[in-house]
Amino acid sequence: MSPGWTMARRTERMNTSAIREILKITDGILSLAGGLPSPGAFPVQALRQAAGQVLEHEASAALQYSPTEGLPALRAWIARRLSRPDWAVDPEQVLITTGSQQGLDLIGKVMLDAGSPVLVEQPTYVGALQAFAPYEPALLPWPADAEGPLPSVVSDASARLAYLVPSFQNPSGLCLGSARRQALAQVFEGSRTLLVEDDPYGELWYDTPPPAPIAAQLPSQVVYLGSLSKVLAPGLRLGYMVVPAGQDAAIRLLRAKLVQAKQAADLHTSSLGQHIVMRLMHDGFDLEAHLDAVRARYRAQRDAMHRALRNHMPACQWHCPTGGMFFWVRGPQGFDSAAHLPHAVAQGVAYVPGAAFFSGSDPEAARMLRLSFVTLSPSQIDEAVARLGRSMR
Amino acid sequence: MSPGWTMARRTERMNTSAIREILKITDGILSLAGGLPSPGAFPVQALRQAAGQVLEHEASAALQYSPTEGLPALRAWIARRLSRPDWAVDPEQVLITTGSQQGLDLIGKVMLDAGSPVLVEQPTYVGALQAFAPYEPALLPWPADAEGPLPSVVSDASARLAYLVPSFQNPSGLCLGSARRQALAQVFEGSRTLLVEDDPYGELWYDTPPPAPIAAQLPSQVVYLGSLSKVLAPGLRLGYMVVPAGQDAAIRLLRAKLVQAKQAADLHTSSLGQHIVMRLMHDGFDLEAHLDAVRARYRAQRDAMHRALRNHMPACQWHCPTGGMFFWVRGPQGFDSAAHLPHAVAQGVAYVPGAAFFSGSDPEAARMLRLSFVTLSPSQIDEAVARLGRSMR
Repeated sequence: MSPGWTMARRTERMNTSAIREILKITDGILSLAGGLPSPGAFPVQALRQAAGQVLEHEASAALQYSPTEGLPALRAWIARRLSRPDWAVDPEQVLITTGSQQGLDLIGKVMLDAGSPVLVEQPTYVGALQAFAPYEPALLPWPADAEGPLPSVVSDASARLAYLVPSFQNPSGLCLGSARRQALAQVFEGSRTLLVEDDPYGELWYDTPPPAPIAAQLPSQVVYLGSLSKVLAPGLRLGYMVVPAGQDAAIRLLRAKLVQAKQAADLHTSSLGQHIVMRLMHDGFDLEAHLDAVRARYRAQRDAMHRALRNHMPACQWHCPTGGMFFWVRGPQGFDSAAHLPHAVAQGVAYVPGAAFFSGSDPEAARMLRLSFVTLSPSQIDEAVARLGRSMR
Repeated sequence: MSPGWTMARRTERMNTSAIREILKITDGILSLAGGLPSPGAFPVQALRQAAGQVLEHEASAALQYSPTEGLPALRAWIARRLSRPDWAVDPEQVLITTGSQQGLDLIGKVMLDAGSPVLVEQPTYVGALQAFAPYEPALLPWPADAEGPLPSVVSDASARLAYLVPSFQNPSGLCLGSARRQALAQVFEGSRTLLVEDDPYGELWYDTPPPAPIAAQLPSQVVYLGSLSKVLAPGLRLGYMVVPAGQDAAIRLLRAKLVQAKQAADLHTSSLGQHIVMRLMHDGFDLEAHLDAVRARYRAQRDAMHRALRNHMPACQWHCPTGGMFFWVRGPQGFDSAAHLPHAVAQGVAYVPGAAFFSGSDPEAARMLRLSFVTLSPSQIDEAVARLGRSMR
């Protein structure tokens, strides 16, 4: 007999990530699709030593239930690392999450009713759209100019949330300058809109570091999301959120509800993973030297992709990104990147078609391709882009 | 200026766990409150070796993004371990979750609209109530007799979900017999209600193993939740769900939506934790011998608590549980376990007041106490119960 159950209405809004489906295609393919960091960028030996130390000396705690908010020592370390002369982060503001993806889900759960307006960039991170979708928001495309999303629309939008990846955005690669960040901070101040500043790529700069986060200028009105996926390793699933600072009742209630949502979602993030990272840092792991090496690796790969695009795809347009993981490439007039994907795969290369990154309709969307430069070596990148160029001719 | 944001309506239904708040009280306290497994029951050495092997030989995969559904090898291992002559579990049915708590959140997200009726035992697991609360269900107290929840009410309830912990329930300790399980399977078959069978304690039997899960009799209508928290270690945050079996369109859609919900919630569960457990099993870890040792440890602690209750709390009533982690103790007429807690803490002992476990009103709720026997040693248990007895006199 066929089961007769009814599912929640919100499931109509849920879908799978085109990216993760494309990632399943691997045989003989050089993939420019995924944002998979190069395993060569993982600090394997240091993590192995740290894991050994943790399971030798602190196993009882590392294998036990731990606080919903995260390990106090890890929260304090993250607060110290983020803090700068113009931004004092209190460890109490830091909540450890199961990847920064979970931060998006928790914010959606706590902030969004069905129909709540949410400002989102065009294009934007697909995973954020997926995380918010079950809460049935009304997504408002956030108009932008070449400098980034326009501050002027924030007041009129009266959105519940605004979602922004300010540094080396996925997929566009755009990094907002300090003037635009300041202008945004000004319009959000005192507004009814909570700004979600998602910053997984801020450490991955190849030319100059990005300006300070918007949260630094507006700490009481921003939830800032960070991740250890790009600086250490994504398989640990360790992210964090910095909740708004201050003791105002509305701020305290938001923090309490985020913690309650986290507790209901998975009690807490892996104690073992948190202990390993703490041990790594406690034992003097040189994170800055590691990040320098990661940046050097990705800078070379970015340069290789820029060269390969010039050599093999002259009919396309792009800005060379100054950080992050992606080139955002505009195909020739009339090019349809989704329709073309099977032809590219037949040539042995994969990418992500641009349409997935838009919540609204956009005349440019169908032409766009997202190409990742963090997984493959420079020579593989050249070969992959050459294949893509051939498939497009 | 005070922030002017509005939070989601569902936050009104969210709250923190009384248990986790009580767990924060530790100084000088012998706590019978938490369900914290004894660290002595963790297979520390085997986990250390496995972690070392993983980070020596498979670090690139163990530190990388991995499939939303979980590692195929781990899903297959869980399917083999659950399968029995009367229950064939397909690896495709197994989804790895960030603790079984996450399974509850995902089920709530996929199945519950505001006002959807959900049958829940009285008392029931607090974490399930917390997980479902943000989806604003209408909780229906599930009437029970001494054998467990009544099958007869299932048809009339027309609930979207029914939530059940059939083996060594938290907090009651009750284990449903095979006759009641069979009767429940019969009434759910062909009903419009999806049964959520949450089974974190099934391996923790001290006298005889529990009967087969209800899912074995009704594989197409049950989501079965399991956990490695009690058999290995909770700090890994590794749980799993066994989704309904079969190729019916409604079943396939439910499975797809659960995977989509998982992807949106945290992309996937820690690759490192999954690899460590797979390596542990691959390297011949004797899980059955380990479980025998865990059972022997907890059996002795259960016996110690049973003796201690007889010696120190003769005015109370309880059934000696045949498995799990808890005694569910009825205080004397007029006793208020919530009001009493500060007095107990003043005597150096903590427990969880019974009221937290009831979604409906129940005349017995205020008298009840949940006492965990898995954290403390037998002599500590005796001392803790002695303190509790003194405080109640």
